[in-house]
Order: sequence, then C-alpha cells, then structure tokens
Amino acid sequence: MKRFVSVFIAAALAATVCSAQAEIKEDFVPSSKNQPGQQYPMVNSQGYARFRIQAPNAQSVSVSLGLGGNGGTRLTKGDDGYWTGTTAGPMDEGFHYYHLTIDGGTFNDPGTNNYYGSSRWESGIEIPAKDQEIFAERDIPHGFVQQILFWCKETNSLKRAFVYTPPTYFSDKESVRYPVLYLQHGYGEDETAWFTQGHANLIMDNLIADGKIQPFIIVTTYGMINDAKFGQIATFDYSPFQRVLCDELVPYIDSHFRTIAKKDSRAMAGLSMGGFTTQVVTLARPEVFGYYGLLSGGSYTPQDIKDKKQVNKIFVSCGSKEGGDRIMKQAEDLRAAGIEAMGYVSEGTAHEFLTWRRALYQMAQYFWGK
Amino acid sequence: MKRFVSVFIAAALAATVCSAQAEIKEDFVPSSKNQPGQQYPMVNSQGYARFRIQAPNAQSVSVSLGLGGNGGTRLTKGDDGYWTGTTAGPMDEGFHYYHLTIDGGTFNDPGTNNYYGSSRWESGIEIPAKDQEIFAERDIPHGFVQQILFWCKETNSLKRAFVYTPPTYFSDKESVRYPVLYLQHGYGEDETAWFTQGHANLIMDNLIADGKIQPFIIVTTYGMINDAKFGQIATFDYSPFQRVLCDELVPYIDSHFRTIAKKDSRAMAGLSMGGFTTQVVTLARPEVFGYYGLLSGGSYTPQDIKDKKQVNKIFVSCGSKEGGDRIMKQAEDLRAAGIEAMGYVSEGTAHEFLTWRRALYQMAQYFWGK
Repeated sequence: MKRFVSVFIAAALAATVCSAQAEIKEDFVPSSKNQPGQQYPMVNSQGYARFRIQAPNAQSVSVSLGLGGNGGTRLTKGDDGYWTGTTAGPMDEGFHYYHLTIDGGTFNDPGTNNYYGSSRWESGIEIPAKDQEIFAERDIPHGFVQQILFWCKETNSLKRAFVYTPPTYFSDKESVRYPVLYLQHGYGEDETAWFTQGHANLIMDNLIADGKIQPFIIVTTYGMINDAKFGQIATFDYSPFQRVLCDELVPYIDSHFRTIAKKDSRAMAGLSMGGFTTQVVTLARPEVFGYYGLLSGGSYTPQDIKDKKQVNKIFVSCGSKEGGDRIMKQAEDLRAAGIEAMGYVSEGTAHEFLTWRRALYQMAQYFWGK
Repeated sequence: MKRFVSVFIAAALAATVCSAQAEIKEDFVPSSKNQPGQQYPMVNSQGYARFRIQAPNAQSVSVSLGLGGNGGTRLTKGDDGYWTGTTAGPMDEGFHYYHLTIDGGTFNDPGTNNYYGSSRWESGIEIPAKDQEIFAERDIPHGFVQQILFWCKETNSLKRAFVYTPPTYFSDKESVRYPVLYLQHGYGEDETAWFTQGHANLIMDNLIADGKIQPFIIVTTYGMINDAKFGQIATFDYSPFQRVLCDELVPYIDSHFRTIAKKDSRAMAGLSMGGFTTQVVTLARPEVFGYYGLLSGGSYTPQDIKDKKQVNKIFVSCGSKEGGDRIMKQAEDLRAAGIEAMGYVSEGTAHEFLTWRRALYQMAQYFWGK
C-alpha cells in the first residue's frame, strides 16, 4: 500500500507539467466548471489556465495549480484591484481541484463551482479533453440520479447514497431487473464525486444511447475513508464500511430497486483509496461481488483470489502518468492464472478525474458491454 | 411588485437584529451547516454566531452577518494568525447566507458548506430553531430526491430538475398515483435550494411518517429568474419559464412519474421571486394548476382570479418580520370572495429559509392534509 501512497502524493504534487514557456495562444474561454455568469478562471486551447481574483488590499494571492517549483501560480495585482496570472505551462486535460492562498489563508476561487476533494469543498477547473464527448450533454434519454437516505445501524445516523438508474428504468416492465455497480470515491472526496466531477451519469447515458452497454445501476456512498489521517492511510481499518456496504446498503438497494440481486450481477469498483477499499472488501466478501474494478488504487495478485471461479471479471486501470506498465502486467498475471481481467491506461493523464471518467467508460463496456 | 422588492431588500439588509449587547453565554457549538470536521463558525443558545478565519497576512476580514450599522461583523486578528469575532447581537433562528470580505474581495468561509444564493455559491450558517424537529433526520422511511435531466426545447440545452418521491413511491402498486407540487426558489437561488437549505425532503418524510399528509411528489427546477438584473425584477418577463414549466416539464414529469396528471392534483408555489413567478404562471395558465402557494412574494386579489371555481386552494405566507398583517388580510379577502385560502405567518423570522421551511410544513397539510 506504500506504493499507492507515494503514487498518490507524486500525482497530487505534479498535477501540472511545467514545460518551457511556449507562446501562449490568446483563445481563452471560461472554464466549463465556472459559476453561472463568471468569466474567470479561463482556459485556452493549449491547456493553459488564467485566473483573476478581486482583492484590492491583499498582500499576496496565489493559486495551487500550475506548479513550477514555486508552490503554484502567483498572481500579480493590477491597478484595478484584480489579481491575475496564467499557469507557467499547459496543464493535463481534465478536471483539477485547486484553491487560492490569500495573505496566508486558504480560500476558494469565487469564480468556480465547488467540489468535495481534499476533505473540503474546493474550487475546480476543467481543461477540455480531446475525448470529452464521452460525457457530453446530448439530446438523448437521460437516467436519474437519486439521492437516497437510509438509517445506518453501524453509524447510528442517516446515511446518504446516490443511485443512477438508466433511462429505461421507469418505462421498463416491472419484471426487468438490472445489474448494479457500487462505485467508490477517493480519499478526501465523498459520495457526490462520481456524479459531479466524474459525470458518471452522463457517461452511462451516452454509452446506453450508443448501444455499447446493457443498462445497469450505479450506487455511490461515502466510504468513511476521510476518518483516516493522511499519513495513516496504509493501516486504515475498512471493516466498518465493509459492514455498512455489504450488510446494510446492498440489502437496502436490492429491496428498493429492481436489481438482479446476486453476486454474478453485482460489481464493486473504486478510485484511489476507493480502489483499496474495493480490494479489501471484494477479497473479504467474495460472495457479495462478482466484478471488481481498481482505478488507480489497490491491486490483486493471482494468489489474492482464493477461489478463481468465484470472480467474474477484474478491471484494473490508471493514468499513463501514474505508471501504466504495472497495470497491464497485473492484468496479464491475472489472466495467466485463469482469471478474466482487463488492464487499461488513460493516455496523458495522472491521478485525476479524467483518468477515472475514461476508466468508467471502459470498465462499463468490459463488465456489461453489448 | 415594488412592495415585494422593498420588503426583499429590507429583509436582506436586516438579516440580524442588533440588540443591546447582553451577556453572551459561552455554550458555542459548531453550526450544523459546517463542512465535515470544521469547528467554526459556531453558534450559541442565544443565537449569537462566532467566526474564526485563518489569514495571517490579511489587513481586514469581516463577515456579512451580524449587522450593527457597520457592514457586518468585523473580525480581529490574534497572535496565531486567526481572525475571530462574534455577532453584535443574537440572530434570527434559521438559515442565513453570508460571505467574507477579505482585503476588499468577496470569499466564502472555508468552514462552511456552500449554498447557491445571491447568484453565487455562498457560505451558510444555521441558528437552531425551537421547532427544528420539523426537518429533523429521523429513523423513519425516507423518500428519494431524484436529479432528472431533460432536453429543453426553449433553451436548447439540458435542463435539470429534482423530484422528491415519497417513501412509498417504489413499494406501492403501479396503480397508485400521486399529486405533484412544483416548488420554486427565490432570486439568486436555483433548483438545489429547496432540498439543501430548505430540507423539503426531510419535512415531507416527517409529515408522512407522522400521518399528517397524503404522500405527494415535489418538483424543483431553475426558474430562470437570475437573468433579471436585480433592479429590473419588477419588469421581468416570466413567459420563457412559463413555457418550460407548463409545456415541457409538466408533461415530462407526468410521463415519467406516477402522477395524477390533472389540475385538481397539481400545485405550484414559490418563495420570494418564485412567488411572483407562481402568481404570474398560475393566473396565465389556470388549466394547469389547481393549488397556488405564495411564500413571501407575489399576491392575489379576488379580482385576479377570473374563474373562482377553477382554483382549489390558495396558500399565502411570510415571516412576521416581513409584515404578517397583509398576508392574513389577503387570505381573508380571498375567502370573502368565495375562494378557499389560508394565511400563515412564521413567528420571529424574516425573508429567510426558516420562514419557508415552516411555510412548506403548513402548506403541505393545507393542500393535501389527512
């Protein structure tokens, strides 16, 4: 698990690549993650980001993105009281969390929407990706994302989950039932991550409209991992969440939605520390899940899988900047041991959400493709 | 409509009452609206709020709450780099939007969750109310809040709505159908307001569990009112939204959910500028809605209602600090003209969400009580 922690830290520190400053094209447009009506932050076609913050009396304003060894992008104050600045180099395609440092305090950029990451609501920016049509907003039937609340015995509190139901769910006959994927967020995130920064529902709607997958349900809930201190992630106890998931949430979903309530139609997957959660839970409770997905977190060796016949399929993935070779080798080793497995590497991305959107797009087709 | 605008502005400016400084009880606890693990802001049993912000090099930090004629609560810097301060007086019970001003710029308090109000994501704080059990999180069956996306012809874009379905919706027989309330947010807010700051789903779950209402569906969507400049609210054109609601969303909901698809089981209500929207739409399209609710915005005279038999019930309400007398008089005038109407005044509150949570609690029982 140390490998995961160091990959995670390296990715977090190197969210952007600082290349030699090329000529910056002046084709900046507002980021798609901006609040309604906000012009800044902006992004250009090369992947540069430009920020603009009003704070006329501040001493210093910087942005935690665009690292060049100096802790981010330092903004410069203009005569109009606005601080502006552009990243030193282009950033990776996809979604990036960030925050401002203003006079030594941590605040969000008032221009952007907020996303729960880093154990707090953070600012977010989107560098348009070549393949962003996989989560485009199209004029096609759209499934629902349902917020459900259930009384959790383990925590003795009301617990929230989100349930994606495919577009056909409410028009299909009562007898039609669906497979279910339980999909976990990463450290510092929560159950909102996959449907906001991850666009999981749009990815599913598009895959279904394009006839690439059988419709299935996705469930996200808080994996209780933020209780871990960051330095103690390697020794975190996943068992309370394992009980919530396997003994409370799965039965709740099976009794409230038209699921195929058996292992052979039930998957668990997660990103980063949610991948570790998946690794631990699937191995501990092989009777619950038949499909396993590790997205930039956790790993399986052939020896980990006690009963090879009990596993339907395993999907492992990461971004090419996280070290893709070990992912492809892992899948190969599993296949050599007689386990159905697929490896996938997202080209040109690191430990961030575009990696995981693409992984979901692939994994959905691998588990329940048409 | 001028009356509304001035009431709105007065309420916005006077979110708190600045009483002579009494002895402040040191029983502060974290606000229920804080981000996970955050201690500040805090609230005490008298309704005071205390703030704490890290910004070691800032020149000035203030909070837009706790008005004492000086533009909010000015925080004082301590030797540890944290700015702290307590409101000059107790605040009204309930939910308040606010923001920080740091060195002349507008930012959110990193301690709290964010809520879409004032046409931006704002910080929020909750002063516990005597009657907060109406939206308490209890161990009872909970309905779902479903995010739906539909392709909107009027705007030529994907439009979002949220749909509350009662706890029995998915276990009831296919033949069981439900009334629907279309519930609008206020100026500067959006379709998230009623289910986050408004706790509409918890209010409904509790009313249903306590046997006080027949189960019904609630739909919220963006009322397109933030396109209005604040100074031009009185002349805003509601007709594009009227078409979206009556000609696109209502048919979509009726075809995707088990509704009773007729006027006599369909209500429209809204708060503040959503009340004005409701006034305009219900009068223009009397064949669509049978039940009308105006919460701190809009008004009906008996002369407004062309065909008195076409209206099932009218509910009008506001907070006692917004001028309750005119509300009770309005309901009385409507009743005198042979229209079923109820007035309700929320005691001790102004133009804020506790007023509207209480109004929903009353209105639900008035429209479809048991």
